[in-house]
Amino acid sequence: MSLSFRHDTLGQRVRFGSGQAAEALAAEVEEGGWSRVMVVAGASEAELAARVTGGLPVAHVHDEVVMHVPVPVAERARAAAAAHDADVLVSVGGGSTTGLAKAVALTTGLPIVAVPTTYAGSEATNVWGLTEGSTKTTGVDPRVLPRTVVYDASLTLSLPVGLSVASGLNALAHCVDSMWSPHTDPIDQALATEGIRALDAGLPRVAADPTALEGREETLYGAYLSAVAFASAGSGLHHKICHVLGGRYDLPHAPTHAIVLPHVLALNGPAAPAADARIARAFGADDGLAGLQRLRARLDAPRALRDVGLEESQIPDAARAILPVVPPSNPADVGVEVLGDLLRRAWEGADPR
Amino acid sequence: MSLSFRHDTLGQRVRFGSGQAAEALAAEVEEGGWSRVMVVAGASEAELAARVTGGLPVAHVHDEVVMHVPVPVAERARAAAAAHDADVLVSVGGGSTTGLAKAVALTTGLPIVAVPTTYAGSEATNVWGLTEGSTKTTGVDPRVLPRTVVYDASLTLSLPVGLSVASGLNALAHCVDSMWSPHTDPIDQALATEGIRALDAGLPRVAADPTALEGREETLYGAYLSAVAFASAGSGLHHKICHVLGGRYDLPHAPTHAIVLPHVLALNGPAAPAADARIARAFGADDGLAGLQRLRARLDAPRALRDVGLEESQIPDAARAILPVVPPSNPADVGVEVLGDLLRRAWEGADPR
Repeated sequence: MSLSFRHDTLGQRVRFGSGQAAEALAAEVEEGGWSRVMVVAGASEAELAARVTGGLPVAHVHDEVVMHVPVPVAERARAAAAAHDADVLVSVGGGSTTGLAKAVALTTGLPIVAVPTTYAGSEATNVWGLTEGSTKTTGVDPRVLPRTVVYDASLTLSLPVGLSVASGLNALAHCVDSMWSPHTDPIDQALATEGIRALDAGLPRVAADPTALEGREETLYGAYLSAVAFASAGSGLHHKICHVLGGRYDLPHAPTHAIVLPHVLALNGPAAPAADARIARAFGADDGLAGLQRLRARLDAPRALRDVGLEESQIPDAARAILPVVPPSNPADVGVEVLGDLLRRAWEGADPR
Repeated sequence: MSLSFRHDTLGQRVRFGSGQAAEALAAEVEEGGWSRVMVVAGASEAELAARVTGGLPVAHVHDEVVMHVPVPVAERARAAAAAHDADVLVSVGGGSTTGLAKAVALTTGLPIVAVPTTYAGSEATNVWGLTEGSTKTTGVDPRVLPRTVVYDASLTLSLPVGLSVASGLNALAHCVDSMWSPHTDPIDQALATEGIRALDAGLPRVAADPTALEGREETLYGAYLSAVAFASAGSGLHHKICHVLGGRYDLPHAPTHAIVLPHVLALNGPAAPAADARIARAFGADDGLAGLQRLRARLDAPRALRDVGLEESQIPDAARAILPVVPPSNPADVGVEVLGDLLRRAWEGADPR
């Protein structure tokens, strides 16, 4: 088969080291020649942000962080950046915090140094999002890609174990789905493979001991790779299914991903043997599904959509709603019957096949 | 072990597709809004360059390409770019051609779109080199990183099979050495692993049938990854050894790499089990050395330094010359006796150990 692809590698520095965030930030701000830092950090991150930005020339701390970045919140942050004459944005927090910094960078062109405290991955992408009322607008712009990401796993220690595992499994779903997403290429697949390896090594350690740094480090590193791969590859079948289930029936994000993923892998794996072999290698398992199921068992991951709010009677409607958004490039043939069967098994908590 | 690293990902677009160079170049030049292309291509590449740049608004074709980019050659190319008011450089050729375009970009800031015709890898790095007399100066500058690389394996079909294999093994050495180079990090290692996989798949196919595109594609893709990984990770023990052997005794570049590599892998593999496991996985072999030796056997790679010009009596001198440049971070302990033993085995063509 001939190799043909286009891949845009996003230029970005990563500084990775536990307990090193303050030092790394100081080095970055000095190297950038910046002297008026606007710190973006929500109230719940205030103490942590103060600790890691204590050595910086801070001109303003902006703590109005709201999920999904509502436009008025973004406008106030932009006004604050201008009022305080900021020359760099340092975000400390999860996806919403990074997202707010991106909203400011989008219109001001200010560089971002991002310090993530969750496994959300937004820090590694050039995607921004804003909401106006109930409408979410997203876009891609080189200005919103953080110049540098400072990963310090000690900052994730306060993330509760349940949320950590859910967020880590979400990252894993990004990696697996990247294998057959519409824009996938071998580079995405190689990075996703490494992401699976890291998440498979890290997540069970986080679950076993949420205070142990090494599991946090592996998981954070894996989450970074999952974001890089997924941002380039785009949404595959798995994310299309979960998006419909979440949007139409208000199912919870992370458990839905955790439940659906093995069923998509069971469907696509045999139709995409090279991708399945990569996933298997990453897990150190005989095939991709065996590796995923072993990890899910170790994490006691949720099994059934019936347990998270889907009604049996909604399955046919869900299958019909998913059908038009199935990527034409999906490796396995997917009709409404295949979708119905997949959803029924996921609903029951049956073994994937 | 705690994970701590700094990684600079270089932002660059890759367009990969056999027979698609002309189309890809047209798309890039249009998207860049450029209207005065300076084509850089040596006389031996003239026909090929004319073919792939035929659809572009070419202001000038510059064909004075000389190995190692002598300063006067660079100066004349810079003057030509100014005289013709070029707004983009399109290089078509091997490492020397890309290098000349980089020399122009270094002082003019002109963007480069590189079309490599060998497996040299320079197109994926921000490293430039110039020679003045017998002195080579190299440096790192973001301006010299090509904006886009257009990989078209059909352009490598004229590369003779011997040179292809030698150049591919050189790329393989970049991948293997990246596993323990001084600045290595897990991202470099993941990319190098993918590079080994691709080169191991591609090189035997090139050797078996130099006109088959698929082997060329895998090899070109692997060479790209080897350059990305190596540019970030830096020179490890293998390259330090080969640099001394080449510089001090004028041994030929590619065969020296091919001969020395298994001996370095035999030395470092057991001391770096995680790296060795990655190499083994990439080869689909029990350990890294077994995989490398299988590939070398399929390629009938050279075995002995005595066959490429090293004298037995030079071994002690070589070991002493290498000792001071051994990276302190090398996984295996390396003293003058270890080096002497390694060189003797490589000289004899003995099995590595």
